[in-house]
Amino acid sequence: MAKDFVTRQENYSEWYNELVVRADLAENSAVRGCMVIKPYGYAIWEKMQVALDKMFKETGHQNAYFPLFIPKSYFEKEAEHVEGFAKECAVVTHHRLSAKSDGKGLEPDPTAKLEEELIVRPTSETIIWDTYRGWIKSYRDLPILCNQWANVVRWEMRTRMFLRTAEFLWQEGHTAHETSEEAIEETKKMLDVYAYFAENFMAVPVIKGVKSPNERFAGALDTYCIEALMQDGKALQAGTSHFLGQNFAKAFDVKFLSKDNKLEYVWATSWGVSTRLMGALIMSHSDDNGLVLPPKLAPTQVVIIPIFKGEEQKAMVNSHAERICSELRAKGISVKYDDRDAYKPGWKFNEYEFKGVPVRVTLGARDLEQGLVEIARRDTLTKESISIEGISDKIKKLLEDIQENIYNKALHFREESTKEVNSWEEFLVEIEKGGFLKCHWDGTPETEEKIKELTKATIRCIPLDAKEEEGKCILTGKPSHKRVLFSRAY
Amino acid sequence: MAKDFVTRQENYSEWYNELVVRADLAENSAVRGCMVIKPYGYAIWEKMQVALDKMFKETGHQNAYFPLFIPKSYFEKEAEHVEGFAKECAVVTHHRLSAKSDGKGLEPDPTAKLEEELIVRPTSETIIWDTYRGWIKSYRDLPILCNQWANVVRWEMRTRMFLRTAEFLWQEGHTAHETSEEAIEETKKMLDVYAYFAENFMAVPVIKGVKSPNERFAGALDTYCIEALMQDGKALQAGTSHFLGQNFAKAFDVKFLSKDNKLEYVWATSWGVSTRLMGALIMSHSDDNGLVLPPKLAPTQVVIIPIFKGEEQKAMVNSHAERICSELRAKGISVKYDDRDAYKPGWKFNEYEFKGVPVRVTLGARDLEQGLVEIARRDTLTKESISIEGISDKIKKLLEDIQENIYNKALHFREESTKEVNSWEEFLVEIEKGGFLKCHWDGTPETEEKIKELTKATIRCIPLDAKEEEGKCILTGKPSHKRVLFSRAY
Repeated sequence: MAKDFVTRQENYSEWYNELVVRADLAENSAVRGCMVIKPYGYAIWEKMQVALDKMFKETGHQNAYFPLFIPKSYFEKEAEHVEGFAKECAVVTHHRLSAKSDGKGLEPDPTAKLEEELIVRPTSETIIWDTYRGWIKSYRDLPILCNQWANVVRWEMRTRMFLRTAEFLWQEGHTAHETSEEAIEETKKMLDVYAYFAENFMAVPVIKGVKSPNERFAGALDTYCIEALMQDGKALQAGTSHFLGQNFAKAFDVKFLSKDNKLEYVWATSWGVSTRLMGALIMSHSDDNGLVLPPKLAPTQVVIIPIFKGEEQKAMVNSHAERICSELRAKGISVKYDDRDAYKPGWKFNEYEFKGVPVRVTLGARDLEQGLVEIARRDTLTKESISIEGISDKIKKLLEDIQENIYNKALHFREESTKEVNSWEEFLVEIEKGGFLKCHWDGTPETEEKIKELTKATIRCIPLDAKEEEGKCILTGKPSHKRVLFSRAY
Repeated sequence: MAKDFVTRQENYSEWYNELVVRADLAENSAVRGCMVIKPYGYAIWEKMQVALDKMFKETGHQNAYFPLFIPKSYFEKEAEHVEGFAKECAVVTHHRLSAKSDGKGLEPDPTAKLEEELIVRPTSETIIWDTYRGWIKSYRDLPILCNQWANVVRWEMRTRMFLRTAEFLWQEGHTAHETSEEAIEETKKMLDVYAYFAENFMAVPVIKGVKSPNERFAGALDTYCIEALMQDGKALQAGTSHFLGQNFAKAFDVKFLSKDNKLEYVWATSWGVSTRLMGALIMSHSDDNGLVLPPKLAPTQVVIIPIFKGEEQKAMVNSHAERICSELRAKGISVKYDDRDAYKPGWKFNEYEFKGVPVRVTLGARDLEQGLVEIARRDTLTKESISIEGISDKIKKLLEDIQENIYNKALHFREESTKEVNSWEEFLVEIEKGGFLKCHWDGTPETEEKIKELTKATIRCIPLDAKEEEGKCILTGKPSHKRVLFSRAY
């Protein structure tokens, strides 16, 4: 357990907040609800971006960039959309500051008031569909498969770093299609991309499902999502993919001439993941000793720390270190050799353990004389002495093992924490323990709302693989045909 | 010359605006002064980002992310800085929209007025130096070498796509150092990175120099810049690197304990390039037939277009095309095989010519029977029939030739357009012709201002390689020791 570091058991919420700061991932800024993403945190986000961007391009998408500002009137065009976002948005009203009349400081210049207020985008459906109107004339112009990497602002009242911030970074895909079927297929395809990324890169097992109407994106006909379970038994929505139907096409008058020579409204999807994924990553794997990172997203996968006395030993250790570094780099493994004199080995051990570097190699001069090195893995906190022979192959294999082990551990935890619950009494007991509860629900928003009021639990999703099964709603006893997933959530 | 496309000679400004739109690079959005960067334009920007980001990391920098919003009071802390940016900034005053009392639409909610207005960052020195205060205690914490890729907003009154937009994309490096010398070295190092990028990737020759006080960044002690010359004889500032001295450290109280155990203010630099580079790229090389792109930044470097009759010929052409594509891709060359039936070869020729694809390969069934293919290069608009033998090696070589040729052409143009001017009469004549004028100047802001008033020309820079030479100011006749570079500018 790291020194002066609160445990998950003691206070999970504080553990998370401290971990984010002490592992140098991010810090709160002077601007309410906005964070500074520090270099170490940003390096992880960059690795996420690279992996996702590659998958987006492999599935035929192109990046583009749309304006940060959205005219207020655009916002008003899609009724549900504005309802969903108007309450928490940053409004630009002036385009100049000027000296106050009393000469003390600056104020928005009264002569520079905007004719129409601009909203800092909370999401870009409106400005993008206004743009698509000019791009789409006929079915030949479809599909349009665009993505943008951008910052967005939602004026959340209660914020937490990565999980819920006023400004956050994300990608938002916005696609336009000829038919409803094609748009739904796209919606599901991108959900699969997100699920693949979460499981294979983040090592976070997720459940794919569709949201109940209450939890749908403002303006969508259907919201698909991936849901992950954090170590405190709360769920975290890690990505969403929306089938928008023709809502935005109608709001922005985007029609195309179909193959049958008819003017029809275009079908839409949008989908996004954000820096919230950083929160999911941190909370899924880390422990009371600090961060645990899956090798595929760790900025530094291997750290090498030398132990020696005197110049002769130093030269010997250095030469081994240099060889191992270049072998690992040739295999595409990122390695750091920390030979700083100003810090003791023990201090370095703690530092890299806390920062979640997956593999630590200790090169001790005395071990090396016997052809041995010590290898420690961050996920299990175990270490062993192994022969230096073929070390880089062993490390490569070890990184793969760690990636798999982290995933399996998280999967095991989720399975242990997922229960079928069949009565309201049982629900009240189990929801306090956390985890996913698979329950029958009568399908009404009222019941979902009531359950939320009583227990703070919401329907995370109706799993795509939920099997048909007759049952009774846990609250109302009304008939139900499949189980949905309840949980308290971030 | 492309159909219905204005020539540079007829109207250079209109030629540029049309080119940007018709080559699918960008378009104006519904939001005043903000553009939509379309996928083709964004793909070029992405290639720029990748190349620059690699160079930043190779020179020891890390990426991070700082808030979009800057509290008004931060802005006010550095006097010159606020003077430079307060007149053209987007001011956020409210965090909610609510229904108007008459029920017609939304307005900024009067109960959700911010206590302190937030400015959408026009540049991030203030918020970053406020953050650095928490990161820096001792010389051991220095240097800090951060960069961020971000959007910024400057409320320009007259905007042009890529060249001057209210919102633009850029990177901004912000570094903190122990000594003045180290900070100046960093400033110059990043200028060299920019110059290398401009010349070796963009194929745009640039002059490295330092700005006169009038043209300095608001808050800098010295602004270094790279200046390029566009085809209409106007200069374009393509990147700047600022030595900020201790101004921001003093404004935000950022001190460190030095090796001598003294508390000292930290030394700073900042440096940036933006989507303005897209404007420089477009205007440096393109012609009356459309875009001309240097191979290193072209999203598609080679396009292959088939010509055939009947299924048998089609199969034969396809098999050649597939082989060439996979050979080129193995060499890291991006290639597109456009076998769409809906478009005729002639239409495709025009399309890719207009979009500046460096090399076009025409695979004609009849040519192929003789072992020949036709290769056209975009820069010279020449084509030749060559043997298909070793085709991918030839294309690789050709791409290198094109990169070099484009650069040399631009360099030749700049050299032809750079003159030494020794009298005011001569200056008045030459400035109308465009180009860089190397002139003596008496070193005063007043003279520079006067020359600008009279001719719209400004000092682009005092070239770093300007040699010591006695002379007389072209306007005032006062003594001068080196020539500076005058030009009208974007």
